[in-house]
Order: sequence, then structure tokens, then C-alpha cells
Amino acid sequence: MELTGIKALGFDVFGTVVDWRNGVARAAAPFLERHGAANADPLAFADAWRRQYQPAMERVRTGGRGFVPLDVLHRENLDIILPDFGLDPAAIPAGELDELNFSWHRLDPWPDVVEGLTRLKSKFIIVTLSNGNVSLMVDMAKRAGLPWDAILGAEPARAYKPSPEAYLRTAAMLGLKAEELCLVAAHNSDLAAARDCGLKTAFVLRPRDQGLGQHTDLVAEQGWEFDAKDFCHLADMMGA
Amino acid sequence: MELTGIKALGFDVFGTVVDWRNGVARAAAPFLERHGAANADPLAFADAWRRQYQPAMERVRTGGRGFVPLDVLHRENLDIILPDFGLDPAAIPAGELDELNFSWHRLDPWPDVVEGLTRLKSKFIIVTLSNGNVSLMVDMAKRAGLPWDAILGAEPARAYKPSPEAYLRTAAMLGLKAEELCLVAAHNSDLAAARDCGLKTAFVLRPRDQGLGQHTDLVAEQGWEFDAKDFCHLADMMGA
Repeated sequence: MELTGIKALGFDVFGTVVDWRNGVARAAAPFLERHGAANADPLAFADAWRRQYQPAMERVRTGGRGFVPLDVLHRENLDIILPDFGLDPAAIPAGELDELNFSWHRLDPWPDVVEGLTRLKSKFIIVTLSNGNVSLMVDMAKRAGLPWDAILGAEPARAYKPSPEAYLRTAAMLGLKAEELCLVAAHNSDLAAARDCGLKTAFVLRPRDQGLGQHTDLVAEQGWEFDAKDFCHLADMMGA
Repeated sequence: MELTGIKALGFDVFGTVVDWRNGVARAAAPFLERHGAANADPLAFADAWRRQYQPAMERVRTGGRGFVPLDVLHRENLDIILPDFGLDPAAIPAGELDELNFSWHRLDPWPDVVEGLTRLKSKFIIVTLSNGNVSLMVDMAKRAGLPWDAILGAEPARAYKPSPEAYLRTAAMLGLKAEELCLVAAHNSDLAAARDCGLKTAFVLRPRDQGLGQHTDLVAEQGWEFDAKDFCHLADMMGA
């Protein structure tokens, strides 16, 4: 444990804080049924939608497109995947697609999250360090009772992780040096990018983030400063 | 009362939420005494510091300077006013001046604030819409227990009020139309700028914001949607 000097914790959110897969599938199920795709697997639909996530951000990261909030990318990605499920986006009212898009604002936290965050908040500044946009994070937090001190990450930084600016501008907005900010994430690649920027790193195991058959991110792949089973375990390790 | 459609409240902070004048004077008093200026009035020192606030931001607003956080402007302004109190900034350790500069992070809320915000939060998204930077707002909120849903305003918007971008980008980050966001402020000029952008407006009376001899902002100078005596009164009016 290297607690020395950590003043703030920045949290990855999709997968680390909330169960995006079951939350999106829950909203997709009645939508698919309503539009005659009742045989489609809502979890496969969630997976297909999520698979468009990195490619869409990559265009922004590589400068092929100016920064746009994740809500916009999610909405475009929805249009991309609907035909794979036999649905024509042009034949569905836009308001209904917008509503389904907001399922990303209504995801449930893992069971340990609220207690763990509340404990960690007593000792550290706790902020989002997610690629989700501000209104997505605010809606999610109000619904689930997530006690963030601030909503930071991609939109205020105007850069998507793992671009260095996403991590470094978050530290700068907190008035902190990189090493005074610790990324908490369930994904080794995110932690590696944060460490490259000088941040401290905490891995939290989320074995169902990718579903029952998950075969990635089941162990800490580097010697991160913290390796925790859940947020309450992290709070134990951090003395909070 | 025109509550229809308001989804979020954006709060001015210096003067509206916290008593900047007594808070800064409290920190200035021992500083002035330590440096041989014990005869200086700490409240006059706070007023002198605050008088540099608008001119410093004006250079950013008019494009004479790129956006820099308010902590930077406050620190520069401190160097500007010290000679007026017989002090040479070059003769004082920089760390001590930085520490005094952080007095702006440690201001006390008016007595009705925590209760009023907590009530308003149950019905609306509540965010800072201040010229203060993110770390200033986060430190202040943690110390005083201010339950913001998000820290927005000048730094995330990269524009100082009353520039329209400060108001409009805040609404955009919340995924809202201008008229779904209501500015809460003790200053008529701030409310007028917000109304020009299409925001709803709520005046809250803070008769000691500028000290005992205050002669401005003692009444609502236009027909703002709300005219409240304090945050609890505003919560009453808003049904929260």
C-alpha cells in the first residue's frame, strides 16, 4: 500500500461502478419485443452496442472528429447496430430511440458501491473519471445515490480515455499533481494509461462486467498500488 | 412562480452561498499582523482583494488572455494589493502567499445554505455556476458539507460570467435547454446576464454580502421568476 500523497480518487464508471450490461439489456428487452425482435437476446444487444464504443471514441481521440459527448456517440452507435437485429432505425420514432439511449443514464451500481464510496469520501476527494458525459453521470448519481464530490472526466477534459489529457486535465482541475490522484478501475488497460501519466492506480475486480463468460480483467496484470475485491475492500486498504 | 420546466438550479457562490468577505478577512488578520501591518483592517483587505476580481476576469472575457482558473487570478491580485497595505510581495515567502490565497477555498456558507440546498436537491439537480475553479469549489464543498450534484461553471465552461458561454455551456453539459436551468444569485447583474441567455432566474437576498454598509443588491431589480429571502425560503417557493 502506497497511500502517501494520494488526495483524490478518480473512478472509472462503466463496469467499475455500475453494471452497464444488465442495465442496458433491461431497457432493451421491452424495446426489442415492441418492435418485433422478441427473439433477440437483450444481453447480446447490449454487447453489440458496447462494441461500437471504442471505435466511436477512437475517431475523436485521433483527431478525426472534434470532441462530442458520449450521449451523442451512443445515439449514433444505436443506429449502427439496429440493422444487426433486423430493425430499421428510420422506421422507429426518434423519441423512442432517444429514450433507449438514456438507458445508459439509468444503470445500477454494484452492491458494494454506495457504502464503499461513502467511506472513501470521508478521507479522499472522490470524482468520476469516466468517458461518460456530465449529464449522464449526474442522472446516474442522483438515481443511485452516488456521493461524488465532482463530476470530472472526458467532457470537462474534452478528451477521451486513454488519451493522456483525460487523466492529466482531471488532476489539474483538482489542483493536484498527477501522483496525488489515483485511478480506480476494473480494467487493466485504463490503469496502464493512468500510470503512464503518473497517476496512482487501484484495480477493483468486477468479474461480471463483461457477463458470465468474462475472460479479461480477472486479475491485476501489473503491480498496481492497490488490488481490491470491491469498493469496501478498497476502503479497508485505504484506511477509510 | 414559474416552476414549469425547471430541471436544474445553478448557483452563484461568492456572496450567494458563502460569506467571502468575513472568510477572507479571518485569514488575512493573522497574516497582516505577522508581517507588521497589524493596523490594517482585514475587512478592507478583503474588499481590496475583491475589487481586483472583475478587472482580472475582464481580460479573459475580452480575449486579452486565454482562460486561466480563478486561483491564478486571485494569486496575481494578491500581489497587486499587498503594496497598498505597505507589504512587498517579494519579501514574503511564496508558500505563505499561496496559503493565504487558499482562504478563498475555506469560506463559510450563510446559515440557511446547507438545509436549503439539501431540500432543493431532493427535487432538482443542483450545481455550482460560479466563476470559482473546480478545486476551489470542491474544497469549499467538502469543508462546509455543500451537497452539489456537480461542480460546473467557469472552469468546465472555460468562460467567466457574465459571458454567455458560462451560462449556456453549463446548460449544455447538463443536457438541458437554457430555460430548464435556473440561476440562483444574490446579484442582479448576474441574473440579468443569465436571463439574456434564456435561463430562469432566482434572486436571493444577501444583505451582508458586501458588508454592513451594503447599498447594492438589496432588492430584486427586475421581475425575476423567484425573489427569496434565503435558500429555505426558495425551497418553500419551489415546493422542495
